[in-house]
Amino acid sequence: MRALVFDVFGTLVDWRSGVAEAFRATGVPGDSEELADAWRARYRPILAEVNTGVRPWANFDELHLATLGDLLSERGLDLPPSQRRRLVGAWHRLDPWPDVRPGLEALRRDRVTAALSNGHVALLVDIARHGNLRFDCVLSAELMRAYKPAPVVYQTAATLLGVECAELMLVAAHPWDLEGARAAGLRTALVDRPLEYGAGAPIREDPDADECVGHLGELAERLALAPQQPAS
Amino acid sequence: MRALVFDVFGTLVDWRSGVAEAFRATGVPGDSEELADAWRARYRPILAEVNTGVRPWANFDELHLATLGDLLSERGLDLPPSQRRRLVGAWHRLDPWPDVRPGLEALRRDRVTAALSNGHVALLVDIARHGNLRFDCVLSAELMRAYKPAPVVYQTAATLLGVECAELMLVAAHPWDLEGARAAGLRTALVDRPLEYGAGAPIREDPDADECVGHLGELAERLALAPQQPAS
Repeated sequence: MRALVFDVFGTLVDWRSGVAEAFRATGVPGDSEELADAWRARYRPILAEVNTGVRPWANFDELHLATLGDLLSERGLDLPPSQRRRLVGAWHRLDPWPDVRPGLEALRRDRVTAALSNGHVALLVDIARHGNLRFDCVLSAELMRAYKPAPVVYQTAATLLGVECAELMLVAAHPWDLEGARAAGLRTALVDRPLEYGAGAPIREDPDADECVGHLGELAERLALAPQQPAS
Repeated sequence: MRALVFDVFGTLVDWRSGVAEAFRATGVPGDSEELADAWRARYRPILAEVNTGVRPWANFDELHLATLGDLLSERGLDLPPSQRRRLVGAWHRLDPWPDVRPGLEALRRDRVTAALSNGHVALLVDIARHGNLRFDCVLSAELMRAYKPAPVVYQTAATLLGVECAELMLVAAHPWDLEGARAAGLRTALVDRPLEYGAGAPIREDPDADECVGHLGELAERLALAPQQPAS
């Protein structure tokens, strides 16, 4: 296994706290965490619309603006354009989970590491700069004009990194993403993020994943025990 | 000016020393530096063949293998496939000029920094890892399937970084690359690399560049005096 690609939202960064905080700052009525969850819940359906051709290609800023509009309308709420833009911008400044920065550094030592997110390149660059996260490369569904879990996203990531699909591992907190990666021939590692949707969630498991870990440091330890080869 | 993109071969890394060393290791007769220069001289013509559609898209490993074959044939030399692969691989392990690592770190502080090379993504990742060079993002002509100086390469880089062309500066050692960037609406900085083709070259100048500097640290100082705005 020569390279690792990382899902970002939920896997590396805590979108819920950052987005809830941004809702609080708007003064909009309601439970800010619940609003964040409800906004995020509109994410996979709208990506499916793009992947099936019902909706033309749009990046995360554009999709977030659309789903925010739907969410506010549904609840009879309104916000001025500047506040909506600020909420969309909150996705650019999300904090990483505490293990992520050192975990990425440890994993980079022996293998190529890249982001592989449905977020667009500029969004990922902002998140990486905000959290001081170092990747060898930032890959995005934007480059393929298709969203995960479309197989072309995972396969093109392998091509761009110059490795076979079987030499590439996706690290993600979401079984649907890991399942998509496996369907494309990648190896997979589940990282549990028990706080992604707030406290009290059951432990996430994926019986088909090659590795299931609690944090990136644990993954680095596990992979250090596995046979390696130089990245180039 | 919100973001900087960097040419790589010649601008950030010393291809001549690394490739000449690789020629010496093969034992092929002749002056290794001259062979490196002659190989490199076949670079722009073959890229032009791709950009004009005479040759189908191929990445740098494939193009380097083709131009190496042409070079060896022309001189009545031969090398086994394993040695040819090793020479092509030498382009993946080129050393940066001494100012590059600290210069990139200084420039990253205030602005988004990305590679923007005709080399393919996997090649650029290997070079960045080899030299411990940190970019926010690695962009490549491979993503556009067109080689610099085609305007689409520079324009797509701006789009992916989420900035206007006029907010993006290309840093390069080659006036033809800077000229291509200006034609696409970018700002430009020439960095002189007097040793790129060996000692004794005249100082490179580009009267149309926004900045002409001797090293990346000098560029960081110049830009620190210019008005800035946050990257996001």
